[in-house]
Amino acid sequence: MRKILVIGSGKSTSYLLSYLLDKSVSENLFITIGDLNTDHAKRLIGNHDRATTISLDVFDETLRTEAIKKTDIVISMLPARFHIEVAKDCVRHGKHLVTASYVSPEMQTLDKAAKSKGIILMNEIGVDPGIDHMSAMQVLDKIRDNGGNPILFESFTGGLIAPESDTNLWNYKFTWNPRNVVIAGQGSAAKFLQEGTYKYIPYNRLFRRTEFLDIDGYGRFEVYANRDSLKYQSVYGLDSVRTLYRGTIRRVGFCRAWNIFVTLGMTDDSYTIDDSENMSYRDFVNAFLPYSPSDSVELKLRHQLKIDQDDIVWDKLVELDIFNPNKRVALKQATPAQILQKILMDSWTLDDDDKDMIVMYHKFGYELNGKKHQIDASMVVLGKDQTYTAMAKTVGLPVAIATLAILNGKITSPGVQIPINKEIYQPILEELKTFGISFQEKEVPYLGYNPLNN
Amino acid sequence: MRKILVIGSGKSTSYLLSYLLDKSVSENLFITIGDLNTDHAKRLIGNHDRATTISLDVFDETLRTEAIKKTDIVISMLPARFHIEVAKDCVRHGKHLVTASYVSPEMQTLDKAAKSKGIILMNEIGVDPGIDHMSAMQVLDKIRDNGGNPILFESFTGGLIAPESDTNLWNYKFTWNPRNVVIAGQGSAAKFLQEGTYKYIPYNRLFRRTEFLDIDGYGRFEVYANRDSLKYQSVYGLDSVRTLYRGTIRRVGFCRAWNIFVTLGMTDDSYTIDDSENMSYRDFVNAFLPYSPSDSVELKLRHQLKIDQDDIVWDKLVELDIFNPNKRVALKQATPAQILQKILMDSWTLDDDDKDMIVMYHKFGYELNGKKHQIDASMVVLGKDQTYTAMAKTVGLPVAIATLAILNGKITSPGVQIPINKEIYQPILEELKTFGISFQEKEVPYLGYNPLNN
Repeated sequence: MRKILVIGSGKSTSYLLSYLLDKSVSENLFITIGDLNTDHAKRLIGNHDRATTISLDVFDETLRTEAIKKTDIVISMLPARFHIEVAKDCVRHGKHLVTASYVSPEMQTLDKAAKSKGIILMNEIGVDPGIDHMSAMQVLDKIRDNGGNPILFESFTGGLIAPESDTNLWNYKFTWNPRNVVIAGQGSAAKFLQEGTYKYIPYNRLFRRTEFLDIDGYGRFEVYANRDSLKYQSVYGLDSVRTLYRGTIRRVGFCRAWNIFVTLGMTDDSYTIDDSENMSYRDFVNAFLPYSPSDSVELKLRHQLKIDQDDIVWDKLVELDIFNPNKRVALKQATPAQILQKILMDSWTLDDDDKDMIVMYHKFGYELNGKKHQIDASMVVLGKDQTYTAMAKTVGLPVAIATLAILNGKITSPGVQIPINKEIYQPILEELKTFGISFQEKEVPYLGYNPLNN
Repeated sequence: MRKILVIGSGKSTSYLLSYLLDKSVSENLFITIGDLNTDHAKRLIGNHDRATTISLDVFDETLRTEAIKKTDIVISMLPARFHIEVAKDCVRHGKHLVTASYVSPEMQTLDKAAKSKGIILMNEIGVDPGIDHMSAMQVLDKIRDNGGNPILFESFTGGLIAPESDTNLWNYKFTWNPRNVVIAGQGSAAKFLQEGTYKYIPYNRLFRRTEFLDIDGYGRFEVYANRDSLKYQSVYGLDSVRTLYRGTIRRVGFCRAWNIFVTLGMTDDSYTIDDSENMSYRDFVNAFLPYSPSDSVELKLRHQLKIDQDDIVWDKLVELDIFNPNKRVALKQATPAQILQKILMDSWTLDDDDKDMIVMYHKFGYELNGKKHQIDASMVVLGKDQTYTAMAKTVGLPVAIATLAILNGKITSPGVQIPINKEIYQPILEELKTFGISFQEKEVPYLGYNPLNN
């Protein structure tokens, strides 16, 4: 039997494990899942005789090395910062590794050693990064194979709530790490390329310079720019492209309302609020507004941010109960971002029967025979329940399929890899279709980058 | 003769040296000015026989120590970060030191050693910090001596242009370090205390939450909050105060216009702009606006920031020539803040006959016999020319007066000091009056902290 070691059994392992278990007889696999707490893994594998769990502390070198030595391939589903020791062991003991995380600088330093040993360290093979790379490269390669020259690439992904569970005014719930949502976009300006010139959006404008996307059957979405749209410019072979823009997808109206928090200063994670523990939600809001002996917190906020009495954005604030004088923050020495996260989690935590949704949208502009063309490609994946989520499906299946392809010698290039070569993406995208993960492609008139044209 | 060593002979030494030279015969002083470049010092002392210059590199330990050993007292007019080695030498060789800079953590560590040797390290005795400490403590002590209980303290300072030289729409020119003006207010939220509650203003709102000040004969000013209004709360004995607010003074309308730069992202100093060297001023503005094949940079800016066609703020932008497609930035690898500084220096650099102005304004609220009272105190100092500036006067004279007071045994408390004790501030403020540096105090109705009441 071929042995697969899965380290970490968090939220995104459900589809990963069910895929591997389904193939375990035909592909002759045995799966060992190692985690500090094996409860979740045990529930996922049930009494399947091709899988077992082991208690594994990834910082325990002896246990970790022992487990890795015994296996044929390792899948690390740990948070990204914990991969590196696993990766070093894999190189040392000649085992392949698959992760869904971004290649860290430390991971990159293992490239040479991995190559010299013929070991594959496959990364960024989840959804974003992962399916975005594969689906983008498939279309870009097709354009180039046909003699076209890419001039525009825009790519957007969002982890959202499925339409049937979309029950609040923000059209949003936390389907993934809430903290990342609260602090998204902070730091230096978002940078991208529009028609040959570099553009910069500071944080205070990020959620006001959005644009729209429409997806058949799912309606309208909006996107705000990612911090660095240019990261994969060379990797994708797009050095001569004139527009390069990556962003995050929300439902229309989310960003305009979110910008209220940004403007007030509630997303700041760089300092702590005095006596945050004993503050009410209302006190928290008032801390960002001028003192008045008589005016209400509500009117001060409306006045400071010029919110008309009939603006729907106001109802979004009220829905979060942020003006409640009786709800306590109850967090010691908390930053504004931590307090805001707590307030949002009251409203945006998934109900038991809520389902999530992953949306991806690419725009490809290219020149062919002197004419400009555009292809739009979009993907929507819906979750089944809170275990078999769209997030777990789109992260776990590419990881699982790649793992089997490596075991079967179908992916062979050694070293630190991301899935941008045809050898890798073609079979994986094909197989993902059988699970309902597929892109709708359509030719559209080339508009170039101009939100006003859309 | 008593020997005074002045290290550094920059912009703010003119009044300092003329004061010491004027007293050199009656007080039996000899002044040595050490600097890397002695040209400016030579011009200031002329052929006065009680002063000389020496070439002094403050990083040359031998030269520095030798000069300090020979003198009776040292005045350091170097940038604040260079004081520490001088201060260590002073303690080692038993010499008093006077600076106009904030007490650094390193300076503070010398307190014990200085005290054990009976050495005075007097700091923060310029204008801000300096005259602000002294004038505030004088009124606060008077209130407390009369049995009053301070409940509100607000303090504002600004380095501005004198009315007769106030010739542009911003009512502002660079009378001091331009870089500090461009990056002012960045980082964590401005924090202060209003009627017993902590308030926080994020950078993106800092220049929109201003308030007004009126000074007889000089008209109306506006202020924006400093980063940390609470720094001197305990030092001033204001732990039970309900309102504590410090700010920076500008002419009315400056902040609303400045906020355009903040909003666009032009004050960011955390990243460099691509190919900044070959950009025009217009390109720079356009880098912060969406691409359009047809719309003008002007209209895009008006639209993004919702600037009406008849808004005076627009003329302020035009006056700076920021839409000029022919003026080159000509700075390699420049941050937005560096580019903005260059553009502003084209317009805001002082003309030869321009004069500066220092404005300070304090509000003191207090309770006495169950009633609330308020004292407002304001100071305006005008420069004479570009050597004898208001800045040099208000920084240099307190330093010089304190130096003589130490030499004459009138200031005696050893250790790291700032001028908050009556022993120090009373005689200095008295003598400053003879140079026209004085406060107008008036009783006003107590309004409490509420901009809408003002």
